[in-house]
Amino acid sequence: MSPSRGPFRGSSDYQVPQAVVSRLSLYLRELQRLLRDGHETTSSTQLGRLLGFTDAQVRKDLAYFGQFGYPGIGYRCGELVTAIKRILGTDQAWPVALVGAGNLGRALIGYRGFQQQGFRIVAAFDADASKVGSDFEGIPVYGIEELAAIVTRFGIRLAILSVPGTAAQEVAEQLVAAGLKGILNFAPVTLNLPEDVRIVSVDLAIELEQLTFAVVNRLENG
Amino acid sequence: MSPSRGPFRGSSDYQVPQAVVSRLSLYLRELQRLLRDGHETTSSTQLGRLLGFTDAQVRKDLAYFGQFGYPGIGYRCGELVTAIKRILGTDQAWPVALVGAGNLGRALIGYRGFQQQGFRIVAAFDADASKVGSDFEGIPVYGIEELAAIVTRFGIRLAILSVPGTAAQEVAEQLVAAGLKGILNFAPVTLNLPEDVRIVSVDLAIELEQLTFAVVNRLENG
Repeated sequence: MSPSRGPFRGSSDYQVPQAVVSRLSLYLRELQRLLRDGHETTSSTQLGRLLGFTDAQVRKDLAYFGQFGYPGIGYRCGELVTAIKRILGTDQAWPVALVGAGNLGRALIGYRGFQQQGFRIVAAFDADASKVGSDFEGIPVYGIEELAAIVTRFGIRLAILSVPGTAAQEVAEQLVAAGLKGILNFAPVTLNLPEDVRIVSVDLAIELEQLTFAVVNRLENG
Repeated sequence: MSPSRGPFRGSSDYQVPQAVVSRLSLYLRELQRLLRDGHETTSSTQLGRLLGFTDAQVRKDLAYFGQFGYPGIGYRCGELVTAIKRILGTDQAWPVALVGAGNLGRALIGYRGFQQQGFRIVAAFDADASKVGSDFEGIPVYGIEELAAIVTRFGIRLAILSVPGTAAQEVAEQLVAAGLKGILNFAPVTLNLPEDVRIVSVDLAIELEQLTFAVVNRLENG
């Protein structure tokens, strides 16, 4: 077990529930949108309505991290954006390694949603020698044996893993050996890695299953 | 308001929470994996441990949909897989339209996780005339004006929207006009559509933010 000194974990084993952290991202997106639309303040009621949560849920989620509202005003959008980005760690820029420069990997290099939130893919890696030395949208492709050197050079802590399922575990172990601390896994396999490496697995079929459930059961948005 | 006759909504306005439906997909994946590994039965404790939930959470989630366990046995994996697929609606094959055949769209055409769960992209659409008439991995690309005809021909109810943000609202309205009932939205914008059309928006930066939160706060998997 590694030491637990995060401000939101504290001295006990208490952790903020994963679902709350996910919702922080949703609050952040709505606040950024409100700001773009010229709103300076908002309320738990408005934020909740935009996202389909109760106002009590919004207040309870934010209360894990501090006191952000002002009596008679509500939340100041800009201030809450800054606070949430600090909590999520995206008040700093994150250089990211992309491992596996196939179709999906190349699409992710061009995915604008990452850049909008401060993530910058700075290097791609691929086992295919014919890709090594080329670049995609300005991102150079390296051989996997250069991983450790590039990770150190750019101070990379996060990787996006978009290799085929058969290669995923082996490549993930190389990522860990190179010192990476977080892996966004698009390969359709479960990775077995040391406990201090955080893995988030993306399974896009889950999202489609939410749609089929809604269509079969004729649910509505909202 | 459209009529609500889904078996899991009933006569009142009661709905199964979205988070429970998401977890059904996770249970399904673990059960499919257990089956592949030769396990015939499992328990709420084992399922919970695999996913990091309590056994009580697993039992409560499944209880929304019926009684699936056997005293002294637990859950029969194959039977529970069948039941969950029926609940999610994936006991039938779903033909899917992919709209926007750029890098991301083409990566999604090749994404094997969809096929594994019964989703089959049968047609792609793009505004770029130079792509129309070609195909990607055997999937033909049509002009957007052919949408309604193709949707009818294949009985398509779901679409994956992978067009640029600036085009997303207009194209989404065309999807609705063509009779589609569910949209998986990869464009980084909020779509405003009729209530009876279900939208699930994919924001991959949210997943990266879960990683940065964990890395900044030194959380562990588990």
